[in-house]
Amino acid sequence: MLAEFDLIRRYFTPGGTAGAESRGMTLGVGDDASLLLPRSGHELAVSVDTSVVDVHFPGDAPARALGHRALAVAVSDLAAMGARGRFCWMALTLDAQRLADEHAAEAWLAGYARGFMDGCARWETALAGGDVTSGRLAISVTVMGEVPAGQALRRSGARVGDVVAVTGALGGGAGGLELWQRGERDLDHPLLRRYLLPEPALEAGMALRGLASSAMDISDGLLADLGHIRCASGVDAVLKVDALPLADGLGAALGADEARRAALSGGDDYELLVTLPPANLARAQQALEAAGIALTAIGRCVAPGEGQNAAEILETATGGRRGWQHFTSPDPAPTEPPR
Amino acid sequence: MLAEFDLIRRYFTPGGTAGAESRGMTLGVGDDASLLLPRSGHELAVSVDTSVVDVHFPGDAPARALGHRALAVAVSDLAAMGARGRFCWMALTLDAQRLADEHAAEAWLAGYARGFMDGCARWETALAGGDVTSGRLAISVTVMGEVPAGQALRRSGARVGDVVAVTGALGGGAGGLELWQRGERDLDHPLLRRYLLPEPALEAGMALRGLASSAMDISDGLLADLGHIRCASGVDAVLKVDALPLADGLGAALGADEARRAALSGGDDYELLVTLPPANLARAQQALEAAGIALTAIGRCVAPGEGQNAAEILETATGGRRGWQHFTSPDPAPTEPPR
Repeated sequence: MLAEFDLIRRYFTPGGTAGAESRGMTLGVGDDASLLLPRSGHELAVSVDTSVVDVHFPGDAPARALGHRALAVAVSDLAAMGARGRFCWMALTLDAQRLADEHAAEAWLAGYARGFMDGCARWETALAGGDVTSGRLAISVTVMGEVPAGQALRRSGARVGDVVAVTGALGGGAGGLELWQRGERDLDHPLLRRYLLPEPALEAGMALRGLASSAMDISDGLLADLGHIRCASGVDAVLKVDALPLADGLGAALGADEARRAALSGGDDYELLVTLPPANLARAQQALEAAGIALTAIGRCVAPGEGQNAAEILETATGGRRGWQHFTSPDPAPTEPPR
Repeated sequence: MLAEFDLIRRYFTPGGTAGAESRGMTLGVGDDASLLLPRSGHELAVSVDTSVVDVHFPGDAPARALGHRALAVAVSDLAAMGARGRFCWMALTLDAQRLADEHAAEAWLAGYARGFMDGCARWETALAGGDVTSGRLAISVTVMGEVPAGQALRRSGARVGDVVAVTGALGGGAGGLELWQRGERDLDHPLLRRYLLPEPALEAGMALRGLASSAMDISDGLLADLGHIRCASGVDAVLKVDALPLADGLGAALGADEARRAALSGGDDYELLVTLPPANLARAQQALEAAGIALTAIGRCVAPGEGQNAAEILETATGGRRGWQHFTSPDPAPTEPPR
């Protein structure tokens, strides 16, 4: 494996830390640990995400997409906190068989590194270290972001009466996976891009500081992720399914019913799911519009249990109950007790 | 997998963050990211280490040892920087087949969690978050430590004339692996403990701040790791092989030749390899003795190329050249250019 390790050093060491010292990295790749000098008055947001071959991505996906995607899904957690990217650490487990052919290995690593390092530059998240091992192809990325102290967006701040909203459009991740499985390989296809080259909503998250009452990124699907906010915040929620912003071309690719299901449960969208006091909605929409990002109201937070009657409560607003559905979380995932 | 995820929450959420808020964690497990408020005047040391089944540990090793070991090898990198432990993030990839039997899965996870969480408490490294996925059993642990600004021990500070020294004793990791492969299963066997339940040299690292000129932990074997210091510092080195402190029982278990080879190249020892100005050696030994840790001089840094003649230079000190050997690094791993 030594030759591969040399390749890694060649592809990942240079450039990854450009400008990093001015942002507080006092020692980068190549020692037992990297050293950082954090800015005072800021909290650090830290998260780790693992991507495993054939679980989180197809084994035959382009190497560049894997590099991009492994970092993007981790950076997306920083976006969900309203944080700015700072540093990342990459734990890369390489499949020795995949690297047996030196030329193929070099091409694969070059593509993977390009995707990863382009993401580092794009999301201002300098590579500060890592570990390369052999095993089954998997990538664990630890990201560190920065947010002014006390201003991070949490899952626990939603209140009864708050609007539920999402950035961008939904269902593209699941739609892209479906297309990939059908054999589509054109990375310029907008749905495939959504799945393989997702873009973390960093700008949106920062713009929503002080406006949103809670936030998280949509990785497991809107309903499952809304369950996390409901549980952490101790609220229930009703959604207007007809209001869900669908990814361009999703209906044409999947049909209307599957498109809606993809938007509700498909996952891999990496948009932000937020709640806001109604008074903040217009201001938040204006703030995001400046960055070219849509923010769409899709529902409302209600008191626990009231969701059962929400269709009646809200049907006058839509002229019929068909469009409103109440969702009890299928898996509220009580990592924090309701407050 | 949902049931397993609930188990994870049960085993890892409580207790892991006890006292963490007072140490600067403002938001722990259960949101998109954890939030930390670092202390001013301190640098953060961050490192990630991946342990893969059948690569870094045997698949049939006790679950508790795996939890302990996965954290220990990461914390060892903090020790090598002279840092104090603060926080960790655990990316755990679980083998679904291993967890098919619910009772066996519960027992395995309980043991694993006990090993990991006991380590968190022991090394004051609070679990701040993580990710659980399915795939082939692997654990990536990101650790964050703290060191007074400017006082971290680096690989690049060794100077010609410095003493080369190691903490504790060597060869125990390789000896333990050999015993495990022979069928030894008593975790109280000192060599097996060295391999499966290594103890990061945190106290030693902190005590050596201001005394050592360079440091790293011995994970890949003394010779390979010395190559990293030589390359980063731009020095050569000569070792007195007869001076290597061997782990208790190593010679009896492996024979004299294999014991020496284990100490030189075996890896998995997680002792510290340091260089010091000769004037600091006695003070460093006294400082470590207070913590019950031996610090043994095993060689000296020489100018690049001088190592070739080192045997002649030094033989007068030992009465013969047999005990001295010069080692050109088998893989200098130039992650940093020599200075």
